[in-house]
Amino acid sequence: MNTNTQTTRLYHSALSPFCRKVRLVLAEKKIEVELVEERYWESPPDLKRRNPAGKLPVLRHRGNMLAESQAIIEYLDEAIPSPALMPSTPLERHEVRRLCAWFDDKFNDEVTVPILTERVWKKITRQGYPDSRVVKDGLRAIKEHIDYLTTLLETRRWLAGNSLSLADFTAAAHFSCLDYISDVDWDRSEVLRDWYATIKSRPAFRSILADQVPGIHPAPHYAELDFG
Amino acid sequence: MNTNTQTTRLYHSALSPFCRKVRLVLAEKKIEVELVEERYWESPPDLKRRNPAGKLPVLRHRGNMLAESQAIIEYLDEAIPSPALMPSTPLERHEVRRLCAWFDDKFNDEVTVPILTERVWKKITRQGYPDSRVVKDGLRAIKEHIDYLTTLLETRRWLAGNSLSLADFTAAAHFSCLDYISDVDWDRSEVLRDWYATIKSRPAFRSILADQVPGIHPAPHYAELDFG
Repeated sequence: MNTNTQTTRLYHSALSPFCRKVRLVLAEKKIEVELVEERYWESPPDLKRRNPAGKLPVLRHRGNMLAESQAIIEYLDEAIPSPALMPSTPLERHEVRRLCAWFDDKFNDEVTVPILTERVWKKITRQGYPDSRVVKDGLRAIKEHIDYLTTLLETRRWLAGNSLSLADFTAAAHFSCLDYISDVDWDRSEVLRDWYATIKSRPAFRSILADQVPGIHPAPHYAELDFG
Repeated sequence: MNTNTQTTRLYHSALSPFCRKVRLVLAEKKIEVELVEERYWESPPDLKRRNPAGKLPVLRHRGNMLAESQAIIEYLDEAIPSPALMPSTPLERHEVRRLCAWFDDKFNDEVTVPILTERVWKKITRQGYPDSRVVKDGLRAIKEHIDYLTTLLETRRWLAGNSLSLADFTAAAHFSCLDYISDVDWDRSEVLRDWYATIKSRPAFRSILADQVPGIHPAPHYAELDFG
């Protein structure tokens, strides 16, 4: 491992959407990063030293330790201005942040956490078997989210407007974790499937599509670019 | 009620820290606002029309409906630049956002939600009696948070650095809700008590200190400016 403190390093977990959004933004900004996988559920003591909140992701960039995924990606967009992933007016910027919060809060609570906890985390941390009722609740909730996103994408090129933004990478981070275990019904919305196919084909997505979580095989279409 | 859609209006709930942070930033920016109290736990149909996430706060500003408290306060700081509540460098701005997330996520989960749910929301929504174990967990957790904030304030004038920022208002929004029901042990930290006394004495705090929630009386010191 490179011990130069100037190397950009991300302490992460492969199937965490919060870590994935940072990886996607780093890649879109063409910042080379050294990935360090953390078994955060074992509360490694170094994690709390790097981030007093004891959570992933933690990014070391230019010698500074940065925490909280939304704060990190806004920092990256300000510190490395090109390509810009935020629009210019306060109102457009609000829409990007509203949708980032939509995914990291509402979508995460209603869809990502229930499904990933039951289907992935219980297996990885050896804490029992999936509760199918919880998974069903998550699969019911994702339908409403897909329908809402469809109404947005019917009048917009990207999720928050006509430019690619942090909102698209935040959304794609959540969807890609669910798609790894094949829990997105892409047939429900043609515009959403097209949106995901477009973002998935960006070079920034390559590292995410190459992920292999020990003991959890990705769905066959996970890394395919023409999955529709 | 003023029906001019150009009037700034906040749909809110008095003891929600997320609504309070928006009220504090509006007041600091000297924006007059019409407050509309919402009984959000009854899921009023208009709430979902104004904010598809079905949550408070919702701000109508210059004819636009804005949701998600952090997205709203960042919008306000960009749309009304003076007084600035964000520092200028990406690294300092990251620190502000990290601490906003600290309060809205970690502090909220570990302290605000357990204590307010048991002591306030169960009473307001008539859903049973407080569970004292949950309250105790919250009161245990707040000690660790106070200690962490104390270490920050020992080397900084304000929470995120040497300038007053959105982080201070976010933190003060949470503390003020707990202080309403007298659940902050200010004797534990002199620097934190001084910080709160300073921010509480700002004109922006007046509307918050005048709050009276039906059936829930504020602690005697709640609105006092020299409470230490």
